[in-house]
Amino acid sequence: MKLYTFPGAPNPRRVAIFMSEKGIDIPTVNVDLMKQEQLEPAFRAKNPNCDVPALELDDGTCLSQVNAVCRYLEAIYPENPLYGTRPEQIAQIEMWNHLCFFNGLHSVAEVLRNSPKWPEGRALTGPYDYRKIPELMARGKQRVSDFFSDIDNHLADSEYFVGGEFSMADITALAAVDFTKWVRIEIPDTHQHLLRWYALVSERPSVKANTRN
Amino acid sequence: MKLYTFPGAPNPRRVAIFMSEKGIDIPTVNVDLMKQEQLEPAFRAKNPNCDVPALELDDGTCLSQVNAVCRYLEAIYPENPLYGTRPEQIAQIEMWNHLCFFNGLHSVAEVLRNSPKWPEGRALTGPYDYRKIPELMARGKQRVSDFFSDIDNHLADSEYFVGGEFSMADITALAAVDFTKWVRIEIPDTHQHLLRWYALVSERPSVKANTRN
Repeated sequence: MKLYTFPGAPNPRRVAIFMSEKGIDIPTVNVDLMKQEQLEPAFRAKNPNCDVPALELDDGTCLSQVNAVCRYLEAIYPENPLYGTRPEQIAQIEMWNHLCFFNGLHSVAEVLRNSPKWPEGRALTGPYDYRKIPELMARGKQRVSDFFSDIDNHLADSEYFVGGEFSMADITALAAVDFTKWVRIEIPDTHQHLLRWYALVSERPSVKANTRN
Repeated sequence: MKLYTFPGAPNPRRVAIFMSEKGIDIPTVNVDLMKQEQLEPAFRAKNPNCDVPALELDDGTCLSQVNAVCRYLEAIYPENPLYGTRPEQIAQIEMWNHLCFFNGLHSVAEVLRNSPKWPEGRALTGPYDYRKIPELMARGKQRVSDFFSDIDNHLADSEYFVGGEFSMADITALAAVDFTKWVRIEIPDTHQHLLRWYALVSERPSVKANTRN
């Protein structure tokens, strides 16, 4: 196996933390997103979605999308499961993982990728150029603020995102929360539950080993 | 268990097809999205995400998000698995399920929810009002066109989305493709592989029993 990645970016970081938690070590190849190497023909031929992370299997098959890569790794290395094992836990991890992706990570991406400093045409990841829509910046900021409120409420009653165990939902949430630093948004001081959780997960060795989006 | 749903909409339809495939029958309660019943306090108290489908368990826990509901059902009714059982198959289903949600369903939603006829403030599902951004209509149409090209290319070499077996990825893809009818986009005649797959899956009893988004 070979993992195509770019250590600076939030989605590769999700996979890196996941692998650290499970003690998985795979040879990596850096794809420099700043140089748009993900769009070059050689990489596109492997992964038509033109994004990282992507996991190339020994038969040449290339898996893209964070949860596809991580669920593959979970299936072949089932120890220390991060997607749950009990039905309700499996479902809650799926729910929060999705909400933290869509309301968290994707909202921050909307702020960043529609901002004046971002290259024109790269408003979304992937093989196609889509022009920036400046109004998405303001909407994205509002969505991040609402996301912070939602997860602060949730974490009032829950040590981690799903009960007392760290899971993939915490990894996605952490990547989303740290991604807000790229657009200079901070967790409001009033969100004590979110701040408590953020301090807790930031202390994990897997997170310390992969500190920054 | 009790399933909160609204049979007209694409996300509830994904769960309905999933349950038909597995022969699962659960009492349902309709939440009329046209009357914005998902925003009423009684439902919001159960499901703060204010969306359907949502599955209420016997202890009162409420699971929202399509894949959370379906993965819960897959865990308690493992026969006829729709999320795969072999590592690579599990990963490919996850990958295509996500791509068909994000590039397919979500792109159509952007067209529809930012159109003049859609109620102002409901540009995204969920508890918060976000104003429409008319430029997302045109971008959404382009994204749907690119999505059709991508999946037509993929289906040139694959009977279903992942090999020779129907899966959750096909369910999400079908819901996305049928959702394009809401915004009067049709599959181009040139996309023969996509049209072949569409005819194949449309003939399934689970799909015929839940015909229209």
